[in-house]
Amino acid sequence: MALEHGPQPGPSVAEILASHASGSGSPTRTAARVADAIAARGEDGTWISTVPREDLIAAAAEIERRPGARTLPLYGVPFGVKDSIDVAGVPTTLSCPDYAYVPGRTAPVVQRLMDAGALYVGKTNLDQFATGLNGTRTPYPVPRSVYGGELISGGSSSGSALAVALGQVPFAVATDTAGSGRVPAALNGVVGYKPSRGLISTVGLVPACRSLDCISLMATCVDDLDRVADVVMAPDPADAWSRDRGAAWSGPSIRVGLPATEQLEFFGDGASADAHLAFRERLARRADVEVVDVDLAPFLAAGELLYQGPWVAERLVEFAGFLEERPESVHPVVREILEGGRRYTAVDAFAALQRLQELRAEVGRLWRHLDALLVPTIGTTFTVDEVLADPIRCNTVLGHYTHFGNLLDLLGVALPAGTTVDGRPAGAMLLGPALSDDVVLHLAARLLDEPRPIATPPTGRHAADVPTGATTPSALTEEHL
Amino acid sequence: MALEHGPQPGPSVAEILASHASGSGSPTRTAARVADAIAARGEDGTWISTVPREDLIAAAAEIERRPGARTLPLYGVPFGVKDSIDVAGVPTTLSCPDYAYVPGRTAPVVQRLMDAGALYVGKTNLDQFATGLNGTRTPYPVPRSVYGGELISGGSSSGSALAVALGQVPFAVATDTAGSGRVPAALNGVVGYKPSRGLISTVGLVPACRSLDCISLMATCVDDLDRVADVVMAPDPADAWSRDRGAAWSGPSIRVGLPATEQLEFFGDGASADAHLAFRERLARRADVEVVDVDLAPFLAAGELLYQGPWVAERLVEFAGFLEERPESVHPVVREILEGGRRYTAVDAFAALQRLQELRAEVGRLWRHLDALLVPTIGTTFTVDEVLADPIRCNTVLGHYTHFGNLLDLLGVALPAGTTVDGRPAGAMLLGPALSDDVVLHLAARLLDEPRPIATPPTGRHAADVPTGATTPSALTEEHL
Repeated sequence: MALEHGPQPGPSVAEILASHASGSGSPTRTAARVADAIAARGEDGTWISTVPREDLIAAAAEIERRPGARTLPLYGVPFGVKDSIDVAGVPTTLSCPDYAYVPGRTAPVVQRLMDAGALYVGKTNLDQFATGLNGTRTPYPVPRSVYGGELISGGSSSGSALAVALGQVPFAVATDTAGSGRVPAALNGVVGYKPSRGLISTVGLVPACRSLDCISLMATCVDDLDRVADVVMAPDPADAWSRDRGAAWSGPSIRVGLPATEQLEFFGDGASADAHLAFRERLARRADVEVVDVDLAPFLAAGELLYQGPWVAERLVEFAGFLEERPESVHPVVREILEGGRRYTAVDAFAALQRLQELRAEVGRLWRHLDALLVPTIGTTFTVDEVLADPIRCNTVLGHYTHFGNLLDLLGVALPAGTTVDGRPAGAMLLGPALSDDVVLHLAARLLDEPRPIATPPTGRHAADVPTGATTPSALTEEHL
Repeated sequence: MALEHGPQPGPSVAEILASHASGSGSPTRTAARVADAIAARGEDGTWISTVPREDLIAAAAEIERRPGARTLPLYGVPFGVKDSIDVAGVPTTLSCPDYAYVPGRTAPVVQRLMDAGALYVGKTNLDQFATGLNGTRTPYPVPRSVYGGELISGGSSSGSALAVALGQVPFAVATDTAGSGRVPAALNGVVGYKPSRGLISTVGLVPACRSLDCISLMATCVDDLDRVADVVMAPDPADAWSRDRGAAWSGPSIRVGLPATEQLEFFGDGASADAHLAFRERLARRADVEVVDVDLAPFLAAGELLYQGPWVAERLVEFAGFLEERPESVHPVVREILEGGRRYTAVDAFAALQRLQELRAEVGRLWRHLDALLVPTIGTTFTVDEVLADPIRCNTVLGHYTHFGNLLDLLGVALPAGTTVDGRPAGAMLLGPALSDDVVLHLAARLLDEPRPIATPPTGRHAADVPTGATTPSALTEEHL
């Protein structure tokens, strides 16, 4: 397998802010750079639509002209948005052109970014209806992993991961219902953060499984995630699952659960197993981490419930009507999956929900003894041809470690960790119980060798709730440079 | 309508304990009194099975012989158990003789009572499979309300309410999935307490809707409920919905939400409306209560979801097999209801759960402005003949104010308040958000003119977790006399 490249991260959020603050760069120059970088790649399946170059520069100029613009927490920072999330005036396609509509309102998560001075660049590709973890289920060009070798990009947030891994934008807004925000991060060597359910409003997101959907974030470092999270996380009465952020991490050590190696599944991929186990060993040698044994069985049992159970029917709450009227407009694999949802009864649904509650209680007791769980994000990788030849099985393999996270109300952070011996992406995933985001992000920063201040963000603080005028230029200098 | 009687409460838990402690009575004498009182009524539909007189006296004697018996928190206090809850060696019938089985283990809620010295008297009647709020759906004698006039007892915990209202036992263990613990309390002039979900283990209960089922308690005063709750409330890892008790009430005033009278429905029953509105007026005149306006619409919308939605299918998780094999063994009305559950798909279930989440969020915001909600428990009463003539409609009317409580994760206390001008039972129900039990019970005690110490029980205290040897006789004297 001839592999190449890997991620080519561009400047981070902090670096872009520093450049804009110092005058060595500016939002308009950043806009031009981003437009040129995207144009240079051509139609590679990363973006479904982008703001035209001149319009992007004009939007950056508008940001520059805002009163107090330089105090904005994301002043001129470019970002992409998964094309299942509304941006007013831009078609939301869900990778299904016949489904597309042009929304009149921008989703709150995107609006908050824009209000914070961030520069909307375009809509990124996805597995149609966010149904898939592989990135091939799209009528647009099928993207490939930045690691080359015809590896899949992963999905469903394929384009969001690529836009970051290619260095076009420092962060992207994606989603995660069963791994859609973490699997493509793993396959492209970036950080994929699925926050606890409800911290970021899902208003303006076309639901996949509404009870499980999360807005997720892609970036190249935890510091960038912190900066973006502070802007986008806020209670929203219009999101029925909305809830407040949890407590900040207060240290010192973090108890990390490691499952027995016999409980880990790499689907015969020895190189991926070796890479993951080496990562575990490095973690276990750290003085600031306490390793705890943990039984992975109840987690995996919840994952099996997801795709062997009735939740696929929840996707039909949104898509049943369209599927009935326009079956030929739906990707054949997605159609097959969605139609499978019709065979489940309400009795099946309640029985599965009861079983899930049992597993939640069981897992809830495990968290008393650990702060985070470390598992692979994906057990192995696939090429595009492998997925096209056996789409359902490959997808199930990809979700082995991610399916359970949403059902069990966990948060997850997919971390890159270089490559396997044969040059494919390697990494790991940290998971924690709902609302322990700051603890898990802190551990993630340590494992990425990032310094991260303690108690950031303070509990209950939402940077975007603070009038921007309250941030003085000197505070900006301290915080952002 | 010729009415009669009303409740004839016997001695309270406190009075029985005092009698047993002083020697003016004893568990064996109490046992004999209870057996005689039950025998005197004959087969009135209150009990499905009772411990034979001699065995009951022997059981009381065994309690008397226990080391430190007099320090037990419920020393010799008799109680009844709804016949959907297991007592080892006693058939659990669910009012369906062909379904009955003899369990080998006693449900934890009952075991805790027995361990605390309480005297198990027998199994009480119920609407079959706990499906109904009226008390007529039983192959055993159909019980009547203690108010006479051929009024229904209410259900499904018909016999539990009657056993307390007739003064046979001071408390009974019942259940509440959609009002089953509150409607019969209202129709028999006793207090029906549906605690927050998960405070009392449901292990050993045959589920109705497992995701909604609560063990509930019937008594004649809040003091008795407090004493019993302290014994039976404890986390149980075997109950997936188990959770810890909430904070104790810390006063001083309690904000009580009153819906606009136009939002209250009495189904044309002016006397019930008058009685309830008079109760409201008395409450509003209290100095220790702050009245707040509240919109009942989202509560009622959740209630409509219950019986117009897919939750009836959850009953089939337990009963589908039996219904298929032995349809003729099932009460015709119960059969019709259960069979209705088959028409719902998983898509229906997820759509309803999504809608419920929206209503939960809406109601969650209302609780910020009030501590408790006051509504009627039932809007009107029915005779047995009225229910038999129109069983489904009458039942829906009976659940108008109770259906939403379990779905919205509320606790509820049905309070008696005398009679209507024409002698039928009148009362009201207090509801509060999950885990605010102590606040609502405190208000309930005030409205019943009961003194109640503040901060009872302290948060996290579970009396039954304390080894009984730790309770000294002098503590008993202080607490129980």
